[in-house]
Amino acid sequence: MPFWVRHSPDREYGGYFTCLDRDGRVYDTDKFVWLQARQVWTLSMLCDRVERKAEWLDLARSGADFLRKHGRDSEGKWYFSLTREGKPLVQPYNIFSDCFAAMAFNRYGIVAGDPEARKLALATYEAILRRQDNPKGAYSKAYPSTRPMRNFALPMILCNLTLELAGLLPERQVREITDSAVHEVMEVFPDPEKGIIRENVGPDGGTVDSFEGRLLNPGHGIEAAWFVMDIARERGERELAGRALDIVLRTLDLAWDKEYGGIYYFLDIKGNPPQQLEWDQKLWWVHMETLVALALGYRLTGRPAALTWFDRVHEYTWSRFPDRSHGEWFGYLNRRGDPLLYLKGGKWKGCFHVPRGLLKCASIFSELKG
Amino acid sequence: MPFWVRHSPDREYGGYFTCLDRDGRVYDTDKFVWLQARQVWTLSMLCDRVERKAEWLDLARSGADFLRKHGRDSEGKWYFSLTREGKPLVQPYNIFSDCFAAMAFNRYGIVAGDPEARKLALATYEAILRRQDNPKGAYSKAYPSTRPMRNFALPMILCNLTLELAGLLPERQVREITDSAVHEVMEVFPDPEKGIIRENVGPDGGTVDSFEGRLLNPGHGIEAAWFVMDIARERGERELAGRALDIVLRTLDLAWDKEYGGIYYFLDIKGNPPQQLEWDQKLWWVHMETLVALALGYRLTGRPAALTWFDRVHEYTWSRFPDRSHGEWFGYLNRRGDPLLYLKGGKWKGCFHVPRGLLKCASIFSELKG
Repeated sequence: MPFWVRHSPDREYGGYFTCLDRDGRVYDTDKFVWLQARQVWTLSMLCDRVERKAEWLDLARSGADFLRKHGRDSEGKWYFSLTREGKPLVQPYNIFSDCFAAMAFNRYGIVAGDPEARKLALATYEAILRRQDNPKGAYSKAYPSTRPMRNFALPMILCNLTLELAGLLPERQVREITDSAVHEVMEVFPDPEKGIIRENVGPDGGTVDSFEGRLLNPGHGIEAAWFVMDIARERGERELAGRALDIVLRTLDLAWDKEYGGIYYFLDIKGNPPQQLEWDQKLWWVHMETLVALALGYRLTGRPAALTWFDRVHEYTWSRFPDRSHGEWFGYLNRRGDPLLYLKGGKWKGCFHVPRGLLKCASIFSELKG
Repeated sequence: MPFWVRHSPDREYGGYFTCLDRDGRVYDTDKFVWLQARQVWTLSMLCDRVERKAEWLDLARSGADFLRKHGRDSEGKWYFSLTREGKPLVQPYNIFSDCFAAMAFNRYGIVAGDPEARKLALATYEAILRRQDNPKGAYSKAYPSTRPMRNFALPMILCNLTLELAGLLPERQVREITDSAVHEVMEVFPDPEKGIIRENVGPDGGTVDSFEGRLLNPGHGIEAAWFVMDIARERGERELAGRALDIVLRTLDLAWDKEYGGIYYFLDIKGNPPQQLEWDQKLWWVHMETLVALALGYRLTGRPAALTWFDRVHEYTWSRFPDRSHGEWFGYLNRRGDPLLYLKGGKWKGCFHVPRGLLKCASIFSELKG
């Protein structure tokens, strides 16, 4: 956190710089709504869970105010990106801006005692539910009906988002939406044969033999599995937690690089060449989320396989991602585990996965110790 | 060519499979209009320039018939991709489908003696000119007016496409369009300080300090430079050819990997971390197009620097890209020069750069010898 507190604040216009080079130098000033919202959430969550530090709360407020003022179009949809000053740059084509805005304003509203912020979170959440069957809207390039497919990202995030917003929603709605999202993650998206989560499936959950249909994003599947474990824990459903851990372990068996270590970024479920040229890279969030999934899986099931894998991923992660000389983690390693880019933040990496994951792991460790 | 003639024909539905694994196995059957059209063009061009082989002409016809039947929407725009059977999959969001369709139908029309094909080429070319100020149309995600930018790809391709279609167009139009495209490539897009072509510039050609504005695609700039050399040669403008070669040499000085050899795929003009995770990869087309640019540059100017660089790029390219055991070239090497993917064709690699570049180099060598 000290890295972000020191280097990211935009003292002139509010909000955060997220494009930070190795030593914290700002190399680009555009503001990506998704990352702005994630940082508001992280700061607010830390005030809520760790310590109500004035510098964290002030910084959260700066981002929340900036987003509230500049983040939405006339229909209330959240833009994808803004200039440093707050002018819209990229249209609201991506519903994940909205997802993280909802998370941010709910948590910020709680810690800042700001009911208007929580109203905005609720309105954004309701708009996401209305858009969920066609999240890309007019920006979808797919010709209608030739090859309908459902994407994993939204059901996955609804598991986490709905639990986050539980205090804002009627209990019955929370139950219905999490039931349906857990069903998607656990029954619809896993490949029936391999039991690994696919990024895109046919309308009935069938495998579509195309680049999109064969795509695996192992980190995504593993992160979703711990979202489900969180729900299982809330509900006391040990068996569900165990099945979620099974997904994690099966994914690691397939996606662990047997030659150089680390978890691949993308794979093709049939072993064909993936379309993504970055397929063999090792990304910080994939490894952080895997540590959370394995720690939580071990906590909820006590299975030794979770511990063995935790040790292996821990050793890989801690010897390569953290930057001992300047703080924070490198985000992108090549297949061999050397930094591919030395940046600490950019268009897709911000103040989110590392603090969330570390806190999550630390609190699981305390429980295990206690 | 034997690799493509043997493995790519779809004998059932017509057109080509382009997703071919190392040994020619078809791993995906979708048809990307851009690559279908490029293969029609390549086969027709070989019939025109090398030998009127029946198997090449038949195969060109199969692709041309497939595209004519299935390739366009009701407004005549070319889809981005189709199913194996020809049903539209991805909307015409990408004007380069149209560019390669125009090239394909013109050249196929010439070798097949098919005036209807050439009419289709002309209509497609005219539609490209009408769309050139807003090529993405409704699929553009940019918020209007906040940060207007011009992209390099269309002016670049108009140099080559207009020369290709010269026989179809009034001489004055060819002159006007190539004048304007050469002006863009040589005066507007090169960075005033470094003299290297930028992918995106402001409306007046100024540098925009954003990810897009700082982006360099060295292979693109080098390929465009030989398109300009082709025009310079047609016109007998030796000085223009020399300036185009200067761009190539300056680009190589910056973009050659001093540690592992080869030309980077993407760079940031200020040396910041590029957004593209594949930035340090070595791609087949970049190296092939560079060989053409250096051979042609040497032919037109006689400058020794072109020859020195040719030898260096030749040695790198021929020792790494060709697959001695199965034919064709690997497309994607990692930074160290080892294959990242073993595919011979995919969504972006087809039957185009390698045969075009080899023939171009071979004919330049003959001239030099003669």
